[in-house]
Amino acid sequence: GGLGLALGLWRRHTALAASREDEEDKELRQRFMAPPVSGLRELRRRRRELRSRMELLIMETQAEVCRALAALDPGASFSVDTWERKEGGGGISCVLQDGEVFEKAGVNVSVVSGLLSEEAARQMRSRGKSLKAKDGKLPFCAMGVSSVIHPKNPHVPTMHFNYRYFEIEEADGTKQWWFGGGTDLTPTYLNEEDAVHFHKTLKEACDKHDLKLYPKYKKWCDDYFYIKHRGERRGIGGIFFDDVDSPSKEEVFQFVKSCAKAVVPCYIPIVKKHCHDSFTPEEKLWQQLRRGRYVEFNLVYDRGTKFGLLTPGSRIESILMSLPLTARWEYMHTPPESSKEAEILEVLRNPKDWVH
Amino acid sequence: GGLGLALGLWRRHTALAASREDEEDKELRQRFMAPPVSGLRELRRRRRELRSRMELLIMETQAEVCRALAALDPGASFSVDTWERKEGGGGISCVLQDGEVFEKAGVNVSVVSGLLSEEAARQMRSRGKSLKAKDGKLPFCAMGVSSVIHPKNPHVPTMHFNYRYFEIEEADGTKQWWFGGGTDLTPTYLNEEDAVHFHKTLKEACDKHDLKLYPKYKKWCDDYFYIKHRGERRGIGGIFFDDVDSPSKEEVFQFVKSCAKAVVPCYIPIVKKHCHDSFTPEEKLWQQLRRGRYVEFNLVYDRGTKFGLLTPGSRIESILMSLPLTARWEYMHTPPESSKEAEILEVLRNPKDWVH
Repeated sequence: GGLGLALGLWRRHTALAASREDEEDKELRQRFMAPPVSGLRELRRRRRELRSRMELLIMETQAEVCRALAALDPGASFSVDTWERKEGGGGISCVLQDGEVFEKAGVNVSVVSGLLSEEAARQMRSRGKSLKAKDGKLPFCAMGVSSVIHPKNPHVPTMHFNYRYFEIEEADGTKQWWFGGGTDLTPTYLNEEDAVHFHKTLKEACDKHDLKLYPKYKKWCDDYFYIKHRGERRGIGGIFFDDVDSPSKEEVFQFVKSCAKAVVPCYIPIVKKHCHDSFTPEEKLWQQLRRGRYVEFNLVYDRGTKFGLLTPGSRIESILMSLPLTARWEYMHTPPESSKEAEILEVLRNPKDWVH
Repeated sequence: GGLGLALGLWRRHTALAASREDEEDKELRQRFMAPPVSGLRELRRRRRELRSRMELLIMETQAEVCRALAALDPGASFSVDTWERKEGGGGISCVLQDGEVFEKAGVNVSVVSGLLSEEAARQMRSRGKSLKAKDGKLPFCAMGVSSVIHPKNPHVPTMHFNYRYFEIEEADGTKQWWFGGGTDLTPTYLNEEDAVHFHKTLKEACDKHDLKLYPKYKKWCDDYFYIKHRGERRGIGGIFFDDVDSPSKEEVFQFVKSCAKAVVPCYIPIVKKHCHDSFTPEEKLWQQLRRGRYVEFNLVYDRGTKFGLLTPGSRIESILMSLPLTARWEYMHTPPESSKEAEILEVLRNPKDWVH
């Protein structure tokens, strides 16, 4: 939409370019939550490069999601923090806390660059490809938008998404690049209609590009968000992919763009539908226990969180933004058979196919 | 005390042995929270072996601590679960939940044995010594008592202790053995008098054996309970040691025994002193945020927790018993300068010496 238009405008460099650019800057500044990390002028200068287009996409996704959430929680507002990383780059963290509808909602953009050790570079790629460094160091650029939304009402599920892009330059000047990302849902109680809507919307986004993508990335999601020590998935899944570098940079970018555009339509209708549902103290308690499991997954298994915590100079508050406002752990809590609590556990233990 | 007496009695095998043994069994059964994993008869048979004496010590420590806690929280009671490990051994988990004084208090004994891979054996030793296995497998025996006490009142600190013993048999029949353990305090607010009492009691227990132990293990504790990504320690420390196998098995056991006996005197007076202190909702909130940090340490850094979660057949509920009943994460929470909250943070960032 507006982003395409803005980029289209940038392509025409006429006598009016300077004032046009000022107007575009103004428009983008108003549309985004904060000025982009790389600066509008720099993004315009290298507007044909994929990392510029990706940075605009993650900025636009952040703003879209924040606006959609804010519209549902009019009393609350996003705090917007821009931060810089000493080693290069920075980010924009938007957090809504203790609202009427949302307990904690964070949408974070980061665009960082610098030099990686060969070991760190290998760890970043899930397939662990080795890369040839010049003097042991690899120039890299990593950017992404990531978000976790924890609502108050136990009938509104938690949602997480993350879309990211990496570039690493090898000693001979060749550039390795790849994308990763995903969107997944973590309900406290199972609502089949919501599960189908969520997965169907993601499947449609995938199917526009390749019919093989949804089944492959749906399974990857179920495998990735696995809390091994509990024998449970974190939620009812969605899509997840990492280290994707084919068929081409342009095609993967278009796929990632479709996924990013699907975030609002796959989730917001579910929030609207349930945010005024009544609930009991017992339902709230079960939500809190499930939040405990969320914390367990994120701190024990999540690659992004672990990588972030170990990376010098990373912004801890933005990484741990994903943790819920409150969580609970009871010793030996087991829901009664045939309860609604047992119903969701069954699906977390044995993932289902929601769309065919 | 009673344990020494019981062992003394066992040394005399007279005509009256059988009925004596029945009486002792009855006495021990009453004193312990549950029958020992190895069985009283087996423990009696190999009563001179260190692992038998250690198993009796951890059983007695469990019972002592549970009784002391129960006396302070008369409305609540410990649930006692005995469990078996398919691969060999088992344990006894005692948990008090949602009492008047304690939010969650767990005291766990485990005595497990079986075969370890060389890799797993290396990971168990903090110094990473390699061990020679027969057919790639090493017979091992690991036992310990571990406990985390989370009180309700923010003026009563959380306390953790753990004392453990390992034996591994190498291919040539030689036995490697070592002890580990520690006791440490995690207050929500700093009370210097309490900090001094806690450390002083631990120092006295150490000093009976070697004056070098307290300073060494106090520092080890500050280094171990470090939440790197926060730049904070989990609490105000205590003592911690791992992989200790000198000067002799008997001497280390006597030292561990002194430490285990110090648990009740170093902690219970602090609980008694503060469990009726009044507190504000703001103080409760700060406690909940600190509980969040406790979760971060245990899930991200604690070697015991990580090892447990990765070990097939381990009892997850007993390992995660250490997590608080409730915890909280607020984005960018920073206490005001010169507040009581800032005071404890300062000590967590720069550990102090509490006794000299």
